[in-house]
Formats: sequence, structure tokens, C-alpha cells
Amino acid sequence: MATIDLNADLGEGFGPWTMGDDAAMFALVSSANVACGGHASDPETMFRTISLARESGVVVGAHPSYPDLAGFGRRRMPASGAEVERFVAAQTGALLAIAALADHPVRYVKPHGALANVAAAEIDVAEAIVRSVRAVDPNLAILAISGTQLEKAAAHAGLRVFSEIYADRGYLASGQLAPRSAPGAVIHDAEAAAARLLAFFDTGAMPTLDGGSIRLAADSICVHGDNPAAVAMAARVRSALEGQGLTIAPFIAPA
Amino acid sequence: MATIDLNADLGEGFGPWTMGDDAAMFALVSSANVACGGHASDPETMFRTISLARESGVVVGAHPSYPDLAGFGRRRMPASGAEVERFVAAQTGALLAIAALADHPVRYVKPHGALANVAAAEIDVAEAIVRSVRAVDPNLAILAISGTQLEKAAAHAGLRVFSEIYADRGYLASGQLAPRSAPGAVIHDAEAAAARLLAFFDTGAMPTLDGGSIRLAADSICVHGDNPAAVAMAARVRSALEGQGLTIAPFIAPA
Amino acid sequence: MATIDLNADLGEGFGPWTMGDDAAMFALVSSANVACGGHASDPETMFRTISLARESGVVVGAHPSYPDLAGFGRRRMPASGAEVERFVAAQTGALLAIAALADHPVRYVKPHGALANVAAAEIDVAEAIVRSVRAVDPNLAILAISGTQLEKAAAHAGLRVFSEIYADRGYLASGQLAPRSAPGAVIHDAEAAAARLLAFFDTGAMPTLDGGSIRLAADSICVHGDNPAAVAMAARVRSALEGQGLTIAPFIAPA
Amino acid sequence: MATIDLNADLGEGFGPWTMGDDAAMFALVSSANVACGGHASDPETMFRTISLARESGVVVGAHPSYPDLAGFGRRRMPASGAEVERFVAAQTGALLAIAALADHPVRYVKPHGALANVAAAEIDVAEAIVRSVRAVDPNLAILAISGTQLEKAAAHAGLRVFSEIYADRGYLASGQLAPRSAPGAVIHDAEAAAARLLAFFDTGAMPTLDGGSIRLAADSICVHGDNPAAVAMAARVRSALEGQGLTIAPFIAPA
Repeated sequence: MATIDLNADLGEGFGPWTMGDDAAMFALVSSANVACGGHASDPETMFRTISLARESGVVVGAHPSYPDLAGFGRRRMPASGAEVERFVAAQTGALLAIAALADHPVRYVKPHGALANVAAAEIDVAEAIVRSVRAVDPNLAILAISGTQLEKAAAHAGLRVFSEIYADRGYLASGQLAPRSAPGAVIHDAEAAAARLLAFFDTGAMPTLDGGSIRLAADSICVHGDNPAAVAMAARVRSALEGQGLTIAPFIAPA
Repeated sequence: MATIDLNADLGEGFGPWTMGDDAAMFALVSSANVACGGHASDPETMFRTISLARESGVVVGAHPSYPDLAGFGRRRMPASGAEVERFVAAQTGALLAIAALADHPVRYVKPHGALANVAAAEIDVAEAIVRSVRAVDPNLAILAISGTQLEKAAAHAGLRVFSEIYADRGYLASGQLAPRSAPGAVIHDAEAAAARLLAFFDTGAMPTLDGGSIRLAADSICVHGDNPAAVAMAARVRSALEGQGLTIAPFIAPA
Repeated sequence: MATIDLNADLGEGFGPWTMGDDAAMFALVSSANVACGGHASDPETMFRTISLARESGVVVGAHPSYPDLAGFGRRRMPASGAEVERFVAAQTGALLAIAALADHPVRYVKPHGALANVAAAEIDVAEAIVRSVRAVDPNLAILAISGTQLEKAAAHAGLRVFSEIYADRGYLASGQLAPRSAPGAVIHDAEAAAARLLAFFDTGAMPTLDGGSIRLAADSICVHGDNPAAVAMAARVRSALEGQGLTIAPFIAPA
Repeated sequence: MATIDLNADLGEGFGPWTMGDDAAMFALVSSANVACGGHASDPETMFRTISLARESGVVVGAHPSYPDLAGFGRRRMPASGAEVERFVAAQTGALLAIAALADHPVRYVKPHGALANVAAAEIDVAEAIVRSVRAVDPNLAILAISGTQLEKAAAHAGLRVFSEIYADRGYLASGQLAPRSAPGAVIHDAEAAAARLLAFFDTGAMPTLDGGSIRLAADSICVHGDNPAAVAMAARVRSALEGQGLTIAPFIAPA
């Protein structure tokens, strides 16, 4: 394996507010999951973010969410499968249009926050997202957490699907991310995160919290950028991977 | 002339609220300007409206607005030309995506309310709308009030542009709609509105409030449907036109 | 018993949208539960509604809700007890201030929709509402469904509490409202609703869906007004009660 | 003169977003203008901010704004005087209620951003704000820019009114703040700002951009805190005033 993608959630401001240091992160990642009005963002923020992505040579994905600005998309909201289809379509469509204006296309979709968690575990929500994306543009790929219902639903529907692992999250033996409340669920030490990823790329096996390991597919590594320590960890992860001879490059062509 | 289009602003509910009698209006018009989140609507309302349009054989246009739910898009909001480009794109893109989900494409764009008034009179706002629409999808047509800056900007940019006249609004000698406060600016009598339209289609000349007349292009007639009297007038206008031998049909093919 | 209150949910528009026929309902009820921005309303709508209440001699209560315009407050939203305290306070405080401007005070609080259902059944949510109301103004009363946790929590905290029964809803043997999906849960016939209420005021016993009956306290009867049939039922209920010699009057003084 | 107040706009986050470093600023100011939902904030942010004010011994004022989250209240929005009355009441009332819950009362009102600019110059908007505040609670004071229409309207209506000057803004000979585009309109150097204020407290005269000076009343000095340089300037201003023997203390008692 010669290349790996780094992705992060970017463009998560709203009106006058910003979240994290997008300028620093666009220099580190190869793909950006761009908020599209569900948990964050507005037309101006979307345009500014996609323009920055284009200038940085970073591939853009849509990052739809439960409609929940107040909760930043981290809360499961009441919504039927049909409602999920419609809000995912509306959010993704808004970003596609802004991307056309910014002359840098959206290439994939990755659900955000609580919607991602639900889509990982529940096939009907996963299928609703996939139906929505396929209707809006069947050339859009899905970026899914490795081993989830969303990954299966996307593959079954004939969408291109790519798998991601997390730089800073502990895994259960089932392959699921450990809940944040569990000891070891969040890795705060950049060196430890980098070392774990290097071992993973060496062996193909990811350690689990119970002391074992699992094999995971990985087209991309998700890093965070919403605080200075997160940006530093993303930088450390990138340099460790490059030091190992890996090239950081998007999993899908920019256009 | 054998056919004429009737258009109305539909899908103008929001969440639990409705506006006018969409079911009655979809049986009367051939084109529907569908709200897309600026002055009204949400993903559920958009989907329901476009589905009804599809079932009714009615062509759908996007109806973007200043972002102003509280004011129903009737107030000019502070916005630069670049901001207009972006919110028109985001609203139109959301509707395009919902239309893909509802399997009934959006074929044109007509600005709403205060945005329409500003785009009629100010070339820079007209051009911002046109740039936005052309970037989002150059196959989208523009539906513009006959004789406006928007009509010129769309034609100059190479977009297909269609002209509309109003069934219930008085005209100035300049070809502009008379301000609502002027005597004769709004026609409340259905028979008078129908008679005026029949005379227009007979002669090609529209009477003006000063007693003269002007020649106007007309691919479509705009009718209202937001109250019972408006629905009754729309029905009367339709039957008068049909009685004159005109066929009510969209100005652009449904797909 | 010589007097009884009739209450309804009013002022449930938002921006340009209206819900039901408030003018008709203000002529029928003695108390109005006025939306305060959670499930509906905005400063203009609140002011217009309270002004109409003042002119009609109708007592005003605040009608706070989960913050959920899109769902009209009918969905349980994720919220801790502390969050409930804060949004109930903010909504109630906004209405108190608008009422001061309209010179017609808010006298009580009645939670709306899903929040009312949760507060009826769950003591921690009931107590959060009561803490919030007592902090904002300990002279505010609580209007609660007869027999609920909210009624208990309000009484325990020393707030004045009044009990309501529903004109058009069937009861379970437990005293709870039957879920809308149950047969007999909603009474659509105005004569049947009126007859049931007359029997209740005669005997003090409310029939239950299982064929039995329960004794309920009743300071007020809740009627609906969000469609023409509901308005007709409210009018029928009022005339039946008056025909029986009851006077329709608020459970609490207007000021 | 032995004491002077320092005020800043605080609590200007929204949902998951923050603005500036409130914790640092609460240690520096004696009065906080707290956003109440117009240009920023929500019930959770209001509660957290007022709780921090209480713990810091800082007096709280309401900071109402044109309803414009997207524009952070910096744009003049279309609104009649009556509409201003109502949105100022609703925002102020929400904060009063949250303050009751947080056990730390709101003592004054200072309009934000574009609303403050308009109320400084236009008597009808100034009077609308004053009518609203007086109706909501006549014990609330007004904090106004020295010499403005708002100051006059508040005094004329019998409200207590306090005057503020700006630590980092240049003045015109008229006593108005110079527009931000004018050279010298914004003072970026903390030492220069501190020196100017010390000279002002020594002489009572504020230098103007044309080389002259004016006499201004000053119950409070407005400092900013929305970026690290602003926090540093606020700290420098405070220490310079204290070094001159002034005590930093609120212009109105906390409760």
C-alpha cells in the first residue's frame, strides 16, 4: 500500500461563528467532509469552505446530519426513514449547488454525528441515506466506518463505498467504535495514535480494547481538527505516515 | 397562438403550516413555482409538493427568495451580489435534490417576492441570480416578468428565458407592475381579470393604468392561489382562456 | 358548580402562517394557551394574540414546548431536565414581556404537545417545568391534565394548580388520555362530546374506554380550534354547558 | 471620580459555537451585555453566561438585537418601530426569565450592533426600545452611547440612563463614533487606548479625529473581548485605570 487518505470534518461554522482551525486542517488532509446546513454551515460558509478546499487540492464530501444546529448533530432526532431521505437530499443538494458555484465538485457523502452512529448500526437508516444519495447523484461515493450497516447498504445499492478508520478512537472486538465513556475510547496522545496507525498499516490488524485485534479495511483515516490539540495530532499522524513511506492522497479523484 | 402557461407559487407551507389550497391549484396551473426554503418550505414540504406536481402533470420551477421565513420573502434583506449567488444556489440545489428523490425534475427558476422585484429593476442582482442558476445547471430556464432586467440578464448569459404577465396586477406605462398601493394595482374581480387577458391575447396590447397600453411578451400568466378568492379567480381565468380556444400547457417540457 | 373554564391552544401561527381560526375561538373560550416560540409563534404573533385575548376578555397562559417548529412540538426531543428548565423559562419569559407590552398579563403555564405528555408521566420533567415556572414568577399557576405528575409536582412546590379535562378525548381507567391510535380515543361528534361533558358535570364521573368510569377534578375543559369542525365542536360544547346553567368563566382572574 | 465601570458584550455563542474568551473577560469587566437570542445565544448559553456573571460578581444587562443570527446583528434589518418594540421585549423577557433561574438579575438594557447604531441616530427607534424596556420592567436602566438619541429618549421617558464611551474607537467632533472605514476609527494599540482614557479621566475631554476634543459623560467604558488582542487590550485598560487610582465597579448595583 502506497497511499492513504486523511479526512476531517471541516466547514463547521455557522454565520459569524467558526469551529476549529480550517486553514491549518486543509494543509493536512486530503479529503474534507463539509457541513451542509444540518448540524452547521450556511451558504456563505459552504462557499468559503469549498473554495479553500479547491485551493488546497482537497477532495470534498457532503456531511449531512440530523437537522439540529443547537445540538451540532450529536443528538438522535425523531425522524422516519422517509424523513432521513429528504433531509439528506436537501442538505446534499445545497452543497452540490454551492460546489458548482465554487467550481469544485462534491465527490462523496459521509453522514455526521448521531446520523452516522445510527446509520452504522441500523440498516433502515443506512438504506434511507443510500437511496437519497443514489437519487441525487449515483456518481457520489459513500465514506463509511469500516464494517458498518452503511457500508453494506451502499455496496448493495451499487454505490462506490470507501472505508475509514479513526486515528484517535478505541475499537471494540466487534469492530465498532468504543462508546466515548469507555476507558481507552479516546486517544489523547498524538504519539500513541501515530504508533497505533503505523502498526496497523504494518500488520493490517487494529488492536481492540479487550486486548485482541481485528482486521479492518481502510481507505481513509479520520482525524479531528476542532481544537489545537486535535490539529497537532493530525499533523503528527500525517508526518508519521509519511515517514513510513505512505503518500497522503484522496481515495477518489477530485473531479 | 394556441397554448399558454398558467403558473402559481405553490408549496409555500412550513413545517405544520400550510398556505393556500395547493390541491385546488395543481388542478388549474401548468407550472408551479415551488418554494425551496428561503421564504417558505422544508424538505418534507418540498417533497410533498413536487410529488403532487408530478401526479398532476405540472412542471416545476424553483422559487428562491431572500432567506426570510418571518417576512415570507417580501422584504428586501441586506445582501451583496455574491451572497445572492450563494443563497440562490443553496435553495435551488436543495430543491433539485428533492426533485430527484421525487422523480420529477426542476425545469426553471423564478425568483420570489422582494428578490423578484429587486432582480426586475437592478441589473447586478439579476446577473447574480443568472450566474448562480447557470453554475448550478445551465439547462434550467428563467421565468421572468416581461421586460425586466432579469429577462435581459438571462438572455445575455445564454439561458433560456420565458416571460410572464400577471392576471391580477395593473401595469404602468413602463411595463412595470404598479405598486400595490396605487389605485388599480390589484384586480380583485375575476371577470375583469379574465376579460383583460382575453383582450390582451386578441390584440397583444396590455392596458396601462394611465389609460394607454403596452405590448408585452407572454409565455405564461401568473395567478395566485393563497386564498379562496384567488383560487376562484385562477379557475375563472383558466376557463376564459380555454373558452377562447387556448390550451393551457407548460412553456417548457416536464422532463 | 356554577362556572367552568374553556381553554384552547391559540396563537399557533408563525411568521406569515396561521393555524386555525383564532378570532372564532376567542369568542368561545375563557382561557387561551398562547404559543411562545417553542412549537409556534414569534414576537409579532404573540403580541397580536395577546391583544386579541385582552379585547376578548380571555385569560392568557404561556404554552411552552420542546423547541421544535418543524414538528410543532409533537415530538419528544432529546433534552435533560436542566435543558427543560431553561427553554421553558426562555419561552415563558418572552411571552411575559410581550404580555407586558400588550397590557394583559400571563396568569398560568400549560405545557404543549409532547412536553405535556412527558410531564404528565415523568416526575423529573414535571419538576423541571415547575422549578422553571416558580423561578420565573411564583404567582403563575399551572394548568395540568387531571391526575398527572405535573399536577402533583406543581402542588408539591406550592404553585397554584388547576386541572383540565378534554372535551374530545377518551380516557383510560388510569385517568390518562387514551393514545390517539386506540378506538374511541378521539371523539369527532360534537353532540357526543357535549353529552359526555353534561353527564360528567351531573355525576362527577368520566366514562372510560373499558366501560367503567373515573372521578376527575375539572377546573377547565380543553377544546380544540385548529380546523372548522373543531371550532363547531367548541361552540356546541359551550352552548350545551350554558344550557345546563353553567357559566363559562376563567379559573383564575385576568389580572 | 473614584470608580468607573468596564462593560463588554459577552455570551455571544450559539449552540456549540463560542465567540471570544468569556472566562477571561468576566475577570476584567464589571458589567456584561449578555446576548439574548437576537444576534447570538440560546437558553443554554444564556444560563451559562449569567451563572458565570453571578460567580464573577459582574452585573448583567440584556443585549437585544435585530433578529439576525446569520449577520450577528450587524446589519440593519427591515423593521417598523412596533416590530422593534416586540422583538426587544421578547429577547429581553427571555433573558430576564433565564436570569431568574440563574438567580442573578438583569439590571439594564444596551442594544447591540446595527440596532444600537440606528437607536443612536433615529429618535423613533430609540423611543421604541425605551417603550419596550419600560413596559417589560421600568426598573431596568438603559446603557447608551454618550450623546445619542437613545440616551435622550430614555431620560425623557424617566428610565435611569447611563453613558458609555469606547476604549478603542475614534470620535468625530459631533461626539459620534467615527465609521470603521475612517482612518483612526479603530485603535489597535493597547497603550494608546489606555493613555487616551487616562487623559480623558484627567481632563474630561475626549480627543476627536479632526484634532479637537469634546466633553463626554462616562459611566462606563466599553471594551471588546472577541479575540486575544481584544482581551489583552481590555486587561491593559483595566490595569491603567487602576494604576491611576480608579476602582473598576458597576454603574448600577447587582441586585
